[in-house]
Formats: sequence, C-alpha cells, structure tokens
Amino acid sequence: MKPKKILVIGGSAAGAKAAAKARRLDEFAEITLIQKSPDLSMAACGYPYYIGGVFNDRNLLLCTPTGVPRDPAFFDKDKAITALVETEALAINRNEKQVLCRDLKTGSEQTFMYDKLILSTGAKPNMPAIPGIGLDGITALLTMTDTDYLRRICDEKKIHQAVVIGGGSIGVEVCEALSINGIKVTVVEALDQVLTFLDWDLAHLVENHMRSKGVQVVTSSGVKEFVGKDGRLIGVKLADGRVLDCELAVMAIGVRPNSDLAKAAGLKTGKFGGITVNEYMQTSDPDIYAAGDCVEIASRISGEPVFAPKGDLANLEGRVAGENVANGNCVTFPGTFHTGICKIFDFSAGSTGLSTIAAERMGMTDIQTVVNASPDKPGFMGAKLLISKMLVSTGDQRLLGYQCVGTGDVSKQIATAAMAIMGKLTVTDLVNADLPYSPPFSLAIDHFIASAHIMQNKLKGRMTGISSATVWDKIQHDVQPYFLDCRSPGEFEAMCLGIGEHLIPIGTLRSRLAELPADKNAEIICFCKVSLRGYEAEIILRAHGYNNVHVMEGGIMAWPYPRKK
Amino acid sequence: MKPKKILVIGGSAAGAKAAAKARRLDEFAEITLIQKSPDLSMAACGYPYYIGGVFNDRNLLLCTPTGVPRDPAFFDKDKAITALVETEALAINRNEKQVLCRDLKTGSEQTFMYDKLILSTGAKPNMPAIPGIGLDGITALLTMTDTDYLRRICDEKKIHQAVVIGGGSIGVEVCEALSINGIKVTVVEALDQVLTFLDWDLAHLVENHMRSKGVQVVTSSGVKEFVGKDGRLIGVKLADGRVLDCELAVMAIGVRPNSDLAKAAGLKTGKFGGITVNEYMQTSDPDIYAAGDCVEIASRISGEPVFAPKGDLANLEGRVAGENVANGNCVTFPGTFHTGICKIFDFSAGSTGLSTIAAERMGMTDIQTVVNASPDKPGFMGAKLLISKMLVSTGDQRLLGYQCVGTGDVSKQIATAAMAIMGKLTVTDLVNADLPYSPPFSLAIDHFIASAHIMQNKLKGRMTGISSATVWDKIQHDVQPYFLDCRSPGEFEAMCLGIGEHLIPIGTLRSRLAELPADKNAEIICFCKVSLRGYEAEIILRAHGYNNVHVMEGGIMAWPYPRKK
Repeated sequence: MKPKKILVIGGSAAGAKAAAKARRLDEFAEITLIQKSPDLSMAACGYPYYIGGVFNDRNLLLCTPTGVPRDPAFFDKDKAITALVETEALAINRNEKQVLCRDLKTGSEQTFMYDKLILSTGAKPNMPAIPGIGLDGITALLTMTDTDYLRRICDEKKIHQAVVIGGGSIGVEVCEALSINGIKVTVVEALDQVLTFLDWDLAHLVENHMRSKGVQVVTSSGVKEFVGKDGRLIGVKLADGRVLDCELAVMAIGVRPNSDLAKAAGLKTGKFGGITVNEYMQTSDPDIYAAGDCVEIASRISGEPVFAPKGDLANLEGRVAGENVANGNCVTFPGTFHTGICKIFDFSAGSTGLSTIAAERMGMTDIQTVVNASPDKPGFMGAKLLISKMLVSTGDQRLLGYQCVGTGDVSKQIATAAMAIMGKLTVTDLVNADLPYSPPFSLAIDHFIASAHIMQNKLKGRMTGISSATVWDKIQHDVQPYFLDCRSPGEFEAMCLGIGEHLIPIGTLRSRLAELPADKNAEIICFCKVSLRGYEAEIILRAHGYNNVHVMEGGIMAWPYPRKK
Repeated sequence: MKPKKILVIGGSAAGAKAAAKARRLDEFAEITLIQKSPDLSMAACGYPYYIGGVFNDRNLLLCTPTGVPRDPAFFDKDKAITALVETEALAINRNEKQVLCRDLKTGSEQTFMYDKLILSTGAKPNMPAIPGIGLDGITALLTMTDTDYLRRICDEKKIHQAVVIGGGSIGVEVCEALSINGIKVTVVEALDQVLTFLDWDLAHLVENHMRSKGVQVVTSSGVKEFVGKDGRLIGVKLADGRVLDCELAVMAIGVRPNSDLAKAAGLKTGKFGGITVNEYMQTSDPDIYAAGDCVEIASRISGEPVFAPKGDLANLEGRVAGENVANGNCVTFPGTFHTGICKIFDFSAGSTGLSTIAAERMGMTDIQTVVNASPDKPGFMGAKLLISKMLVSTGDQRLLGYQCVGTGDVSKQIATAAMAIMGKLTVTDLVNADLPYSPPFSLAIDHFIASAHIMQNKLKGRMTGISSATVWDKIQHDVQPYFLDCRSPGEFEAMCLGIGEHLIPIGTLRSRLAELPADKNAEIICFCKVSLRGYEAEIILRAHGYNNVHVMEGGIMAWPYPRKK
C-alpha cells in the first residue's frame, strides 16, 4: 500500500500535535509540516513570562521538557516528520490535492501533494486602522519576534511608560510583564471592564488589584490616535481627548482566525471568520481538516459555533484531527465549556461555563447566581482569598457557570467546576461533594462546596441575596436602606465601607433589636467580611418579623467599589 | 408552639456544625451542646501543623477566622446555643428522651431533655494492649492535650528520637511535624506500605520521599513491646526483634468510632462499630441522629457502609443532621467517594474512588489502570512532578478511581477526578475535558487529561503497558527482557535504572533497529523519563514487526525501586 501523504500547514500547537498524533497512528505515512515562522511548536502562552523575566532562557519556549529544541531536526529524527520552516503555504488546489508553498528564505516555490490536509494556520492579531498605528513602538504579542522585541525593552530599561490596549488575558499578562520590569503601564479597555469572561463585579476586583500594583486601568475608552514624533510613538490619544504619554503601546484587542488560505480555497467559514469544521475537525472538504485558532468550534453550553483561540483546545483539536486523518473519522471533538484562567500579579482569575453577562446575552432568564468570598484554606495555613460567582439554572438547578478570582487557588476551583458542569451536576449533588481535604489544601468545607451551600440556601429562600452592584446603585440614587454591618468593633475600626452602615456585632444583635428600624417592612441590608455573619443576621431579623432583609453577597471582600477604609 | 429542644452530644466538627445549622433553621429552638473536652469546634486536622511549628498561635486552632474563640460565650452570643464544656454524657434514656450528663469539674450530674438528639461523639484512637503501652513518652494524637504534649516536646528540643507507629495520614503528618523539628523519626507500619489509600507503587514513591528527608520507614513490621526504664520509654521492640531506640512513641494506627453511648442506649451499630444511620443521618431511633467520626456512612462506590472519619465529611454530615432535626427529614447525605489527601514534606498524596487494591478487594476484575508521570506545569514556570494512577471499568470505561502523588498540585488533580467520578464521566469524556489552562497553572494538556489520553491509548490497544512492579518481579526472577531506554545519553548519564537496559535514544531508534533482538517475539520493554518516548518506541517497534513490546508505565519517574543512579 502506498504510504498516506499527510500535509499539515502550521506548526504551532494544533499542527504539531496533529502531525505527531498521526505519526503515532501510522508509522509509514509521509507527514510534512509547513511552517511560516522560523520556530516550531512554540510555547506561545509562555511568552508573557519570558518577557517579564519569570525565566530567562528563551530556549525553554522552543524545547521539549528534556531540553531538545523542537526544530526540523527533532521532528525528523524523533517523529519522522518533515518540517519545513520559513515556508509559506500560498494556495490550496483542492482538485489536484496539492498545496503551493514558497520558501521565504530563497523565494523558490514548491508544490506538495496530499491525501489528507490539516490546516492549523492559527490566528492574527486585530490591528485596527487607528491613525499612527505604523509608528515605531507599537506591537502586538503573538509571535516570537514580538516576544523578543518586548523582552529587549524590559532588558534595556530605557522605556518608562507603556500603554496596553485591550484588557483581555493577553493584555493583563503583558501588563504584568512590563510592570514588574519597572515600566509604568496603563491598560486601556473599550468595554467597561477587563477580562470579559468575568462578570463586571469580579472583573472590577481584578482591576482594583491591578491598581494596587501601580497599574492605571482605563475602561470604557477607546484609542483615537497614536501620537508620534520623528516616527516614534510618544503617546496614545483616547477617544475622550486625554493623551497618555508613552514610548510603547501593545495592541492586545484580541485575535481573529487566520483563515485566508482556507477561504481562498473555497472552504466554508463561520460568522467569526473561522474555518467551519464538524465534530471530526473536518472542513467542508472531506480531505481537509482544520484545528487550532483558525477554526470555530462548538460551545458545549449553547451548541453554537464559537471562536475559542486557546492553547489547550488547540492541542486537543489537533489530537482529534491527527487521529482522523490517520485512521478515518473515528474520534470527535465535542467543543468548549469556555474554561479559562489567567494570572495577574498575585491574583488569578478564571471562569468556566456561563457568566451572567453571557447567560443574559443568550436570553436566559431562569438563572440564579450567588457570590461567595472565603479563604481557600485555614488561616493558620496561610489562607488566601477566593471570591467566586456560581450560576445555576433555577429549573433543574444544574451548574451552568462558575467564576473565581483572588489570591487563592483559583485554578483548582475552576477545574472542579468545569468537571461539575461536564458531569451535569446539580446543586443537590454539589452540596455533598467529596473533595480532597487537609488543611494545607482547603477548608474543611471547600470554597466550592460552600458556594453550593450558599446557592442552596438562596434557592430554598433562606437567604435573600443582594449584589454589591445593586447596593451601590441604591447609594448612587440616594436610596438609603438600613445597612447592618455585623462585624466586631475591631474589624470595623480596621476596615469599613462607610456607606452609612450601623455596626451591630452578630453576638449582640439579638439583644439590640430595638436599635433597628421600628417598621418591620424597612429594607435592611446585612453584611460582614464575607457575609456569613450577614446571613445569620438576616435569619435572626426575619425570625423577629423583619420581612425586607437582604444579605449583601460576598460581604466587604467582594465589594468592588471604593470604601472609607 | 413550644420551642423544640435539640440536644447535641459532641462539639467538634460534626456536632458544632449540626447545632449551628439547626439554629439557622430555627431561631427559637433550645439548642444545647454537651462537650466532654474543654474546647469546642477545634480545628483538629490542623494539630500536626501547630505541633510542627507551621504556626505558633495555639488560639488559631480554637478561633473563628476573625479571631473570636469558639468558646461557650461565643456559642451563646453568636449562635444562641448553650454549650457546656467539660461535661460528659453518661447515658441516654430513649423512653424519657433525656440524657444524663456529668459536669467533670464539679462531679455534679444533670439530666437534659430532648425532642431531637444528635450524637457526634467522634472517634477514639486504637491503643492495642502492647506490653509497656503505659510508659511515659507514649501518646496518640487525637486531642488538644495530645497536641500540647507533642508541641512541648518540639519546643523543648530534649527528645532526639521518636517512633511513629502507623503510616496512615496522621502518622505521616506527625512524622513530618517531629522531623522538621530535628527529631529523628522512624515510622513503623504493619502493612507493606504507608498510606493505604494508595496502591503500593505510589505509596512507595511517598516512602522514598520520606527517606530522602531523613525518615526511616519500616514496613511489614509490628510493634512487640515498648521498652522502658524507670517508667519512661527508651525503645520500641519490633516483631522481628529489632529495638528502635527512642524517647517518644506516637500511636497512629487509626481510630475507631466512639459509639459506646449509642450502643449502651441500644442504637444499632455496624460492622466497624460505628452508629448505623440512614441517608438522613438518622439512627435506628427516629428521634436520634448521628454525624461525624462516630457513624458509618455509605460508600458511593460500593454502596456498602464504611467508616470514614474525616473532617470534611463530618461537617457535611453535621449540616444534614442539623437540617433534618430542625425541619424534619428533608435532606440526605449520599456518602463518600473515599476522597482524601495529605501532605508529607514536599510531597502531597491524594486519592479518590477506587485504588487497585480496593477494587480487587471488592472482587472487581473488569478494570484497567494506567500510571502517568508528568510535570504539573511547564518547566519554565517551575514545573513540579505528578505521578498518578487512573482506574476505569473496562466495560463502560467510566472513571472509578484516581490516585496522585508528587511535589506538584496533587490537590487540583484529585478534586478534578472526584468531580469526574461523581459525574459518571468516561474516558471518552475526559480526553476532551475543558480545564483551565495558562502556564502558571498547568500544561497545555493538563496532567489529568493526559492520564485519560494514555488510558485511551491503552484501552484501544495502542499502548501495551507494564507496571514497574511486574518489571521488578521479572528482574528478581532472573527473567531478562530487552530493556530499551529511549532517552538521550546526557539524561542517561545523569540518572539510570541499571537493570541491564540498552540506551537507544528515540531519535535514532528507526535507524538502529538492527541492534534489537533478531527474534520479533522477544519481549522488549521500553521506557524513558516518563514513558512518552517509551510509548513512541513501542509504536515504532510494533510497526516493524515486533509483537511483544511493552511500555513501562510512568517511566523512571514512577519507578519505586532502587536505581543505579
């Protein structure tokens, strides 16, 4: 039998994975990998950490865990894959099943035949036609070249002010990298929050943390113009007229699928511009598969195609594509639960499933959310804070989404929730989940389980939650409920909101009911540090006839607005 | 309506939780908590960390997160619960619905009436009648008194050698606590491994780690006698006649349910001696509930009652008991998936669901396991090692168990697996799980997903695994397969097994096939550092006609036996 010719265009995450998987399933296939850049199988998600100096050996981005460079020689020897770098695929001839490529070093062109073709052409950064975008000092962060440029800037220490345009994961990661190198960074985000995978309230806690690290965060503001002098960037002019002085601007307003080659070949693409694939990662041409940042995949929440350019998904998609080109369609890729995480200074921020914004965008109304703030482990083991929001459907009480931010172990929270969503678990399941407990790792009742407990209390009508946003809105509109802070005087002295609250420690509440409004219909909003005592206060007050009592969810720890101290 | 009288016996985890939950559901119930010890709601799982000096403020074990001691005054003021410490419940009169108690300070006796009674009498340590067990210098670790005793020993620095009897979680935790205080510790375990929630191979990796920290681990050996001089312990004599000199012995051979009070009252108990409860945490007397270490609960794997004395479960059980006594039977506790974790120096060790030993004990034969060794995150982010074993049923390919040890983020792995087991997820589900990925937190393909990938390869017959134990057995019986180490010469130079292996780096294997045995039926066992390259070697060899090729699972990183270097 003639060996199968498998051609892979793109040698980053998805392409390299697909080629390697195909090789493992067919030792005798002829596998060729075409890569435009000089590097292969780069650890692209690690770029911000190399820029920031978390590590200094550039090779670590390009080597196997045992230190072997993932270069054409490695692919040839270890994988028996012919990898051609600095080679661009120019056109696909689907009738002849061949791809025209150009060697970017010599300019010579060559045609490669295929039995099966895999497109993993990745993404390209959004670079809108803002005046001045061609100035020196403006870059994206997508390639090793961008990475080397930004790393040099950090090493040279000549640049003192930078603007990062876009407050998504890459934006905040590059912000941190520059900031820890002494560069004063402003993040400009057109929307009203950073990290849009989070709801506004949790995102604002992240922004507060960024500000505490000396970063300026400007939301709800676009860039109007890049201001230059002698061809070099000297400032960024915002839509509101403000000019932010800077010598560096990093464009991080997202990426879009690099599907030009596919489109030119007449392959079907979707509404985000990504290549349309079925569950086998097969395009509209049965002999062509696609994987990675150039495709659209299914949302496992909505069922709709989405654009989810993520390194982990690219690997999984590549694995499926590689198996199917080698063995015929036999494995499927089910899509994404929208799980993601990023680190921002001492905070982590992650999400899986639906946020409230996303649910509302989908027109869902039968949802319930709850905010939980608590340490990740006991205080004596060095507790760190977690603030999370759980989202369930009110009908079947299934977990549909979970977001978490804070200095604690966010990653475990999100992984736990992602599995719970995948397993279609309900609040009733989660309240008695059996998670690993020992003081170095968690509280006796894990933060995730506690979130489910609070959700259950809320669904059973025992806790009447109110969000900090609603409370803030009342204050802004001069509506003044009776705010009841149930903490101790010492805690109040050290930190307080200053919204006209009354301090009645929970231990004295039963004996001080007379101090509360005489009108049992008066609105009373209870809180404490994390609103566990706030919840106990609500219960006491309701038992004593107050019927308009709310608990401010997450307490002071989840309060994203300014506080008195 | 007359307020409901709720009486709770035992004020540690389960009892305090049950009382607090009942209070939140019934503001006007009369809730009384009877506690034999002077302390309430102690963070007992934290004792080893206070002993070791991870923290030095004893109050942290006894206070709320905001620093309020959980004493009778706190229970009175904050919870409106009457808590009586140093008070022992002597007898339950079920006909009269009353409990006779004695004040241990004054000796006076008092009878308490109840409408609903909750028993949370905890556990007591196994203290077998070994000769000499009454000597000074022998203790268990269950109470604050034990904790204070051991902490004082660490502080005084007079004792230089200790023996810990029992290699379970508490045994290894107290071993670490003493060891980091300069005490030379020997752990004696009657079974052939420590941490019996793990299979032998993973447990042995933990033992190796303990030895690397200067701990002596003696397995398969019991204690015959405590040797004393002038009433003080001077040594521990083992069954094999050896005497271990020591001035301190800690008994940590497990606990048993403290169900004497329940038994005396005629309540039903189970085969482990724990109080029998139904899913409502209700005993054989409908007005008496029980929760915590004194009960037997359902295994969610086997459906059988088990004794699972764990702080997290005690809290969850207490919450259910508290709700049901307040509101009538309305919530259920489904039992345990046997999830657990503990820290041992730089290692963590955790497990959920079935181990291989446990599955075999249940008579299960249709199972498949796979060992996976890999970093928890990229090398450039400070990767730490994880070694795990996944267990699935071969029929429906459902995940039934997962164990993990190593210096990496074991807790996240176990939490992820626990949720996957609860969600009845299969290997097909897990290979495309959507877990949070970013370099500070995981590999692009998370260790857990990679475990599922390897399992899938094995189930599909693409990888033929062999355990390190089987390999070791062959070596011990002078069976010498062709061992193929596929790493680089540099790696081999730095570390190798020395079992007669042949070094053929994976990148040269295709061109050096002539060096392999001419007989295509010869047994060849491939491995590398973690056996990913070992797997690639198997594939290459099978493609070239070798039909008796195995991959040693987990590679050198999972090898629990001595190696040459």
